[in-house]
Amino acid sequence: MARTSLGSRFEQSITLNALRAYIAEFLSTFFYVFAVMGSMMSSRKLMPDAASDPSSLVVVAIANAFALASAVFISANISGGHVNPAVTFGMAVGGHISIPTALFYWISQMLASVMACLALRVTIVGQHVPTYTIAEEMTGFGASVLEGVLTFALVYTVYAATDPRRGPLGSMGPLVIGLIAGANVLATGPFSGGSMNPACAFGSSVIAGSFRNQAAYWVGPLMGGAVAGLLYDNVVFPAQGAASATGVSEGVGV
Amino acid sequence: MARTSLGSRFEQSITLNALRAYIAEFLSTFFYVFAVMGSMMSSRKLMPDAASDPSSLVVVAIANAFALASAVFISANISGGHVNPAVTFGMAVGGHISIPTALFYWISQMLASVMACLALRVTIVGQHVPTYTIAEEMTGFGASVLEGVLTFALVYTVYAATDPRRGPLGSMGPLVIGLIAGANVLATGPFSGGSMNPACAFGSSVIAGSFRNQAAYWVGPLMGGAVAGLLYDNVVFPAQGAASATGVSEGVGV
Amino acid sequence: MARTSLGSRFEQSITLNALRAYIAEFLSTFFYVFAVMGSMMSSRKLMPDAASDPSSLVVVAIANAFALASAVFISANISGGHVNPAVTFGMAVGGHISIPTALFYWISQMLASVMACLALRVTIVGQHVPTYTIAEEMTGFGASVLEGVLTFALVYTVYAATDPRRGPLGSMGPLVIGLIAGANVLATGPFSGGSMNPACAFGSSVIAGSFRNQAAYWVGPLMGGAVAGLLYDNVVFPAQGAASATGVSEGVGV
Amino acid sequence: MARTSLGSRFEQSITLNALRAYIAEFLSTFFYVFAVMGSMMSSRKLMPDAASDPSSLVVVAIANAFALASAVFISANISGGHVNPAVTFGMAVGGHISIPTALFYWISQMLASVMACLALRVTIVGQHVPTYTIAEEMTGFGASVLEGVLTFALVYTVYAATDPRRGPLGSMGPLVIGLIAGANVLATGPFSGGSMNPACAFGSSVIAGSFRNQAAYWVGPLMGGAVAGLLYDNVVFPAQGAASATGVSEGVGV
Repeated sequence: MARTSLGSRFEQSITLNALRAYIAEFLSTFFYVFAVMGSMMSSRKLMPDAASDPSSLVVVAIANAFALASAVFISANISGGHVNPAVTFGMAVGGHISIPTALFYWISQMLASVMACLALRVTIVGQHVPTYTIAEEMTGFGASVLEGVLTFALVYTVYAATDPRRGPLGSMGPLVIGLIAGANVLATGPFSGGSMNPACAFGSSVIAGSFRNQAAYWVGPLMGGAVAGLLYDNVVFPAQGAASATGVSEGVGV
Repeated sequence: MARTSLGSRFEQSITLNALRAYIAEFLSTFFYVFAVMGSMMSSRKLMPDAASDPSSLVVVAIANAFALASAVFISANISGGHVNPAVTFGMAVGGHISIPTALFYWISQMLASVMACLALRVTIVGQHVPTYTIAEEMTGFGASVLEGVLTFALVYTVYAATDPRRGPLGSMGPLVIGLIAGANVLATGPFSGGSMNPACAFGSSVIAGSFRNQAAYWVGPLMGGAVAGLLYDNVVFPAQGAASATGVSEGVGV
Repeated sequence: MARTSLGSRFEQSITLNALRAYIAEFLSTFFYVFAVMGSMMSSRKLMPDAASDPSSLVVVAIANAFALASAVFISANISGGHVNPAVTFGMAVGGHISIPTALFYWISQMLASVMACLALRVTIVGQHVPTYTIAEEMTGFGASVLEGVLTFALVYTVYAATDPRRGPLGSMGPLVIGLIAGANVLATGPFSGGSMNPACAFGSSVIAGSFRNQAAYWVGPLMGGAVAGLLYDNVVFPAQGAASATGVSEGVGV
Repeated sequence: MARTSLGSRFEQSITLNALRAYIAEFLSTFFYVFAVMGSMMSSRKLMPDAASDPSSLVVVAIANAFALASAVFISANISGGHVNPAVTFGMAVGGHISIPTALFYWISQMLASVMACLALRVTIVGQHVPTYTIAEEMTGFGASVLEGVLTFALVYTVYAATDPRRGPLGSMGPLVIGLIAGANVLATGPFSGGSMNPACAFGSSVIAGSFRNQAAYWVGPLMGGAVAGLLYDNVVFPAQGAASATGVSEGVGV
């Protein structure tokens, strides 16, 4: 029966509604990565030693906040507005999305990130697509823990923002997701970059051709996302009834 | 009958409600262009070599985001809050606004942009009204593609934000439209200027008396807007019923 | 009968609800002026030649946007959230508030501004309370016209944001009022200061002891506010029924 | 009977719902302090003489606004979203939360702040956790008054934002709380730091090992918060009916 269930879950992952959800995730992640990576390239063009000025940090943080809020908004009603493999992982751990669907989300997100970085590389001449870097004095492990804490905050906020029990406050959900991302970038930009998004780190690495420290941007965020999901669902806001765990569960079909 | 239909559509474009929609577009575009172009002049006054500092980019990007959000808001209920010929074009391609009405929208938007730049030129002494410029190392074609991608993201977000199927999230619509515009300016300001708005580029060129690279700010955005409209309506969120395509369709009559 | 009407209007201006509205205006204006003038003093302390850096402009503009949005929000339900004599004037011209009530609003706003500047002067040592200044190359008349255009945009937005016909979008009203103010400061900060608020200019002048160019910050904004009110009510969004013009009309009694 | 009442109130402070409220306060305060203190460390790394540039102030102020808005949002439905001992004190003075519950809130908030600063100290190498400092030319008393005025504005806004009589505007509540905090930081950052939050000052002092001027960050904010609560409840918006004063009163149980 487990097998049947898996089969049926997989079938639910390839319906027309599910395909539209993957396209929505692709577009949202594309817009987000384009703005975030583009803002890094902008600030580097304006100030070649970009790492040494607070106003460069403001550029990247605001781009992150603004782009994430709108990216989450435009796909909120069809795919749940994850825009981030760590969010999808956290949602899968909490049972809000099935494993096959989560895998398709990941593929959409990573493909979108690679395409966005490719678009930047092709159209913008004279600037390389940057990768996330860790401050010299820090270890990869430290950066991974830092990214894990940030992603914990982000995924916890996503859980809170998409909780239907939130009532009228829920209309602000996509905005606060963007705001916590922006605040986190301001807090840790010069130390680990404040990625919180494995797809973003992956896409830029593919186009830049350097996978240095890539693990730090996957391990921490995925673990932070998983812990956030478990904590929210089981401790802080335990569900009264059973949450549906099959198919694309949040808001498919608009 | 096609002729009759065209005639009746044209008549619907000159009703009292339609005229009020054109005035609303005029005012919104005026306020938007005034703030965006004014912020460029501000940052140039404060730092003559404005192109070389990230904080100048922050000034222009935040002005863009804040002004667009409020400009869309104040006309959302009467004209749909386009504030941008590329948005109007994308809405016309998707059949959400008739061709004659779209033409009147364009005239209102471009007139408003010229007037806003004229107001800046007259009141502000000692600073020229700037035009959008392309980074030296880039071609006009590259800049046009870049602007096209940005406008694609913007118009897609406009479609998502004004979709009545969005439910309570819809109240945040005007804000996220401003946010994606701001993020896009941060991403591409030093490369193509991040205009995304042919009216803005047109008005500043008229007053500055230079139409250099003007085509880049029309071709890319219009194509990006059209693709966004087609994609949203036909692929990601196909309409269940037929959308009305006559007259000023969004929210006329408050 | 006109006299009776005036008498009854005046009586409506001194009810308990009206007094609470004046206190609400006082507090909102106090918080707003405190943040705006304080941010000018902050940026001057950090960079003595403050007028020469775009990041100082960002400080003042964001303080303006954030403080105005929250100041309007906290008094929206009791006094209408004017926080600005030009807004009150525009509302009186449009008949949304009676003349006696408007006068008490003005007194509350100007008193609040003086008190806020006094509080800054007393608590902050080593920095003078600044006044709004006009760029050397500009005339007082030019600055007044500029401030008039800005205030026109602001008061028009206030009209749009507080229009009950706006439906669910209305919940964003206080935010967009703050956003347009912030965008306007970015556009004109180095030229006329971007005051848009006679109370703010008045309070700082009283405490700084200099009324130079004070007229520019009154004439332009009041005229811009009046034109905005007339245009909104009579041309763009004509009222279907008669608006009440007596007493504190917007949202008294929470 | 007073004793019985105290006993029953204490019992209401240790129910399962109350425990979940304490966890929510802990998490929100952790995220907030992590972002605020992290942003100070970021700006210091980018510019060692951080106190001398307006863009550093922008970094800290935006981190404050963005992080507070999202921190309040995620706990609004379960604990009321205080995130600040001064807010809890102001709510207790106004009778919106019982004394025992307020004490548990304080413990959660201060513990969260210490843990957040500890997490920053452990993960970020090469930067000390900073403490709030008072400008050289100012006295501790002056700074305390300044922080008191800021916290008065903040707590008054919290009262206004969480007032159920606010109607649809209420959905913007968490956002405006963040905005006023950001504006206040811009106004006073270089003078007293703009803490407004005793927990934030306490946590950073514990980890940095310096309690210099700590009293200034407790006395002013607590008094400001208390006055705001009394003024809002008794003068500006007097409650028509009796507010419940027992247990965790705001939105427990989602």
